[in-house]
Amino acid sequence: MNTYNSDKIITDTKSGPVQFIQSLNKKKFRDEHRCFLLEGLRAVLEALEEKDFVREVIISQSFKTTEEYSRILSLIQGNKIRATYVSDKVFASISDTKTPQGIGCVCRYLEPKRVRISGNMADIHNDVKNILLLEDVRDPGNLGTMIRTAAAAGFDAIILLEGCVDIYNSKVTRSTVGCMFNIDLIQNLPNTKAVVDALKKAGFTLYAAHPRGGSCAIGEKFSQKNVIVIGNEANGITTAMLHHCDKLLTIPMPGGTESLNASVAAALMIYEVIRN
Amino acid sequence: MNTYNSDKIITDTKSGPVQFIQSLNKKKFRDEHRCFLLEGLRAVLEALEEKDFVREVIISQSFKTTEEYSRILSLIQGNKIRATYVSDKVFASISDTKTPQGIGCVCRYLEPKRVRISGNMADIHNDVKNILLLEDVRDPGNLGTMIRTAAAAGFDAIILLEGCVDIYNSKVTRSTVGCMFNIDLIQNLPNTKAVVDALKKAGFTLYAAHPRGGSCAIGEKFSQKNVIVIGNEANGITTAMLHHCDKLLTIPMPGGTESLNASVAAALMIYEVIRN
Repeated sequence: MNTYNSDKIITDTKSGPVQFIQSLNKKKFRDEHRCFLLEGLRAVLEALEEKDFVREVIISQSFKTTEEYSRILSLIQGNKIRATYVSDKVFASISDTKTPQGIGCVCRYLEPKRVRISGNMADIHNDVKNILLLEDVRDPGNLGTMIRTAAAAGFDAIILLEGCVDIYNSKVTRSTVGCMFNIDLIQNLPNTKAVVDALKKAGFTLYAAHPRGGSCAIGEKFSQKNVIVIGNEANGITTAMLHHCDKLLTIPMPGGTESLNASVAAALMIYEVIRN
Repeated sequence: MNTYNSDKIITDTKSGPVQFIQSLNKKKFRDEHRCFLLEGLRAVLEALEEKDFVREVIISQSFKTTEEYSRILSLIQGNKIRATYVSDKVFASISDTKTPQGIGCVCRYLEPKRVRISGNMADIHNDVKNILLLEDVRDPGNLGTMIRTAAAAGFDAIILLEGCVDIYNSKVTRSTVGCMFNIDLIQNLPNTKAVVDALKKAGFTLYAAHPRGGSCAIGEKFSQKNVIVIGNEANGITTAMLHHCDKLLTIPMPGGTESLNASVAAALMIYEVIRN
């Protein structure tokens, strides 16, 4: 079977393969098929480096005329991945952006490699050092930026308690710019206490990032194994979670304003940990 | 004249006062009238603390039933500011958000207090220490977050070269969450060389935030007077600007990814300066 026949171009926005891709903008369908859509050249290139991860690459007619097309083509041919060619109009119908790059891929759900938690069971690899724990983070742009920053800083995992925005939401994946594969992501954990207990049992110290009242985050001496907890954009960390934390840290705001953007606060805490 | 008569509620989205407010979502009209719309409770409260800055407060019918209304009312009565009462439908027609808070204000353009630059003339107050210089920053959310972070960290000013997104764009003002008044903002500067010369003459050292190839930003010993230069989201700082800078700094990314979000990179640089 020629899986990358570029002669056949789908022009009907209602055709079966297109409707399948369109359906992936709904969480329900993503969960059912355990796959999601990733858009943009850099993200697709990063995804193609992960073995057995990309189910299908979607290429628009316009993208075929770009310089980058041959690079993508050799990758999908080498890995025997299915390529679906579509008209620009069809690509626009599956894209989340106003000016799509014309290249995307359907990926399988990510499997964490070194941090596994479900129910009361936790399996955390010994060499895992730094984890970001998110409680009720709702803004997809913030979440995507946090994933990108934590991956850049070499954090090992991000654990998302139930109530956070879905990591496969298209605005999240776009904001990560292809960084989702460099870090373990574990989401939809309903039982805060079970997660906290598992982390403490594995030797982690929990630091809450709080807008006021904590010790100064700058210059903090962190432990060998750290969990940074970030809360909801408007309300911060819940009281219940604060009680679970070993230490409250506050980023100083000498300018006298009230708070920082959640993804900025997370970035400052993350880099404070890795400078240790 | 009773400037805060809450009995008269505008219900027509096409009435004169409403059309004026609606027009402020266009830069052309903002520049013509030298005023802009600010939305949300926290932003309005911050704005009302600035003398002679708010021209008019806009209050929706729903907002009048909230707990915060009496607080707003006493502030506008005390300062003799005009209040415009509108129906929820009218408020929705002027709002930039899907779920408006029902409170906003029309503000006069900000006047920088300690940093003034135009053409080849620069007047920088002696006690100004830290400035953020932006080149071609295009994303309104990024710009708003940078303003919020720089204000929180106590930076003195942000200088925006021509080509950056307008600071009065509603997405920018929303992302600042009322922090625009704590920092001097100077925008639309067309002549990069004139700005750089003025800053150097005033004793500032220019640091370029560059994704690769610079000295490690972490642990850098900064000068007494610092300018942090941040470039375009996709392309970074231009070669011309790089030549103007005294030093290139790179934020380490031990996780092996390619780059950070521009507002995160700015935040890490800003806090690296103030920890000195």
